[in-house]
Amino acid sequence: MPSREMTVAILGASGAVGEQLLRNLEARNFPVKELRPLASKRSAGKTIRFRNEEVVIREATPEAFEGVDIALFSAGGGISKMFAPEAVKRGAVVVDNTNAFRMDPDVPLVVPEVNKEAIKKHKGIIANPNCSTIQMVVALKPLYDRFGFERVIVSTYQAVSGSGAKAMKELEEQSRAILEGQEPRTEVMPVGALDKHYPLAFNAIPQCDVAQENGYTLEEMKMVRETKKIFSDDRIGVSATCVRVPVLRGHSESVYVELNKDFDMEEIRHALREAEGVILEDDIAAQVYPMPLNATGKDEVFVGRVRRDTVNPRGLNMWVVSDNLLKGAATNAVQIAEYLV
Amino acid sequence: MPSREMTVAILGASGAVGEQLLRNLEARNFPVKELRPLASKRSAGKTIRFRNEEVVIREATPEAFEGVDIALFSAGGGISKMFAPEAVKRGAVVVDNTNAFRMDPDVPLVVPEVNKEAIKKHKGIIANPNCSTIQMVVALKPLYDRFGFERVIVSTYQAVSGSGAKAMKELEEQSRAILEGQEPRTEVMPVGALDKHYPLAFNAIPQCDVAQENGYTLEEMKMVRETKKIFSDDRIGVSATCVRVPVLRGHSESVYVELNKDFDMEEIRHALREAEGVILEDDIAAQVYPMPLNATGKDEVFVGRVRRDTVNPRGLNMWVVSDNLLKGAATNAVQIAEYLV
Repeated sequence: MPSREMTVAILGASGAVGEQLLRNLEARNFPVKELRPLASKRSAGKTIRFRNEEVVIREATPEAFEGVDIALFSAGGGISKMFAPEAVKRGAVVVDNTNAFRMDPDVPLVVPEVNKEAIKKHKGIIANPNCSTIQMVVALKPLYDRFGFERVIVSTYQAVSGSGAKAMKELEEQSRAILEGQEPRTEVMPVGALDKHYPLAFNAIPQCDVAQENGYTLEEMKMVRETKKIFSDDRIGVSATCVRVPVLRGHSESVYVELNKDFDMEEIRHALREAEGVILEDDIAAQVYPMPLNATGKDEVFVGRVRRDTVNPRGLNMWVVSDNLLKGAATNAVQIAEYLV
Repeated sequence: MPSREMTVAILGASGAVGEQLLRNLEARNFPVKELRPLASKRSAGKTIRFRNEEVVIREATPEAFEGVDIALFSAGGGISKMFAPEAVKRGAVVVDNTNAFRMDPDVPLVVPEVNKEAIKKHKGIIANPNCSTIQMVVALKPLYDRFGFERVIVSTYQAVSGSGAKAMKELEEQSRAILEGQEPRTEVMPVGALDKHYPLAFNAIPQCDVAQENGYTLEEMKMVRETKKIFSDDRIGVSATCVRVPVLRGHSESVYVELNKDFDMEEIRHALREAEGVILEDDIAAQVYPMPLNATGKDEVFVGRVRRDTVNPRGLNMWVVSDNLLKGAATNAVQIAEYLV
């Protein structure tokens, strides 16, 4: 049992990830003395449910962090940059789910199954990696430990919930419109803040975040940079192609990895089966493999379609699925918070 | 103008690809003297429309191929094996859209943009490759010619229409059910003939055909084997992961290729821009890239997200989209037929 009870603030309590943070704190029986949901002025005064009680959302201000032990941030990078120093100044440890501090050398970037020891080095802020990175590194960790690798090529199949509740609603409305032979309305996807919007329903959009100078998207470069940082290994070279597909919850990834040592497939399966946070669902002959519909609402990372590459005997292909709102966001953040207790 | 008019049989005239074959013969103004739609006994007697006339579907029998010059087959591998020799015996050239003869050393496997010269070697049967192979090799051909390559890693995002009209209807019905909070019915996907069926709506299924001994699916191994045969180059090593996504028409592919020579990106873009059958849609900064909704109904292969690998300076990533019923099936078959005229 945890030693003491905490005052926990949730910044972005009214969002898609905020909701999952609340459910996770409940389900994992986190030692919450006081829950303090915070949000923008617009959402302040609304209520959220926590442990069968209505709790009023307060406006996020620097003072709202007085007395907070742990603050879980999930309200966008700009908000994190504004409030994280204020919360830390007041004695809170911030677990930040945005891109604001992930590559800051003073901020640990943590997936507990991979690098929980990094948590200890925090100076007030701990960053939660990007959803697509988290599930990939959990699946890669047992292979890294036993065989080592330097080369990963990944293509993602990302759910719309990564872009929030509004994007989920848009996909549903677009699907209805197309099924009724009407023009779908496009306002959110692929990136709300950009000029052009495309229907995601019955489509696939090869853009999950803004473009970078090198022709990659920010989402793709997050996978490249965050993977190196989480494994503390700059030799790891990741190539990523990030694609949005018409799925509500659950990211899937086609992962190719070149291991540094010879392997037999039973060793690989054994390593994955024993790995923390991984559930192996791997029997193509019996049509057993992970799928986003089955991963929805679950905390683990599901791995299947594990097979030796047809070309390189040290190459391995696998299919990695996880609920992007849970292990990809809320579950990972609450796991970090558990190590802080 | 073609020199003579042909009697053209279409076997599988009532199917999803059969319909596209008819539209393609019309649109490309193919020199049809007589169109002879053939199908199973069950569909015989129904009519199809061709050039504003109703044409009665006849039952496929050996005798139905008497007097036929070109027979376009698209009714499943078993039917092709049964009737192709009968059609050839009666003087027809068969363009077969199934898996029945693709790897037969006596049968050319043809994508005109890549290996049209192979058509001449036919002994009565010419095979149309699998849809996911066709669009990939069209995009790779200009790179093969200028730079050479031996290594390709591809992950597919395949539309449901590859499994026929029944599968398309299932995806629509499943989508409606899920939007209304009901259980989706599952009878067709991922593979009609197998035991287990899963919803494809709002899901991703990492199985596009039956399993093979080596843990790959047949669809994946088709991409491996057919690519070697089409390029007549056994050094080409393809690794494939084939995934069904909730898209009605248009396969997408995340393709990684390692070129044999150094390149600059302008050379790559120039080669793709000039390539036969390719349309380059490549400007991520302006949110320009191919998507299946935009490729539907078009004959070309669309290429975008072209960028140098972040790890290997001779590596290249690209995103390749094409209508699987058109260039992936009907258009390619009719193009082959045009070379026969």
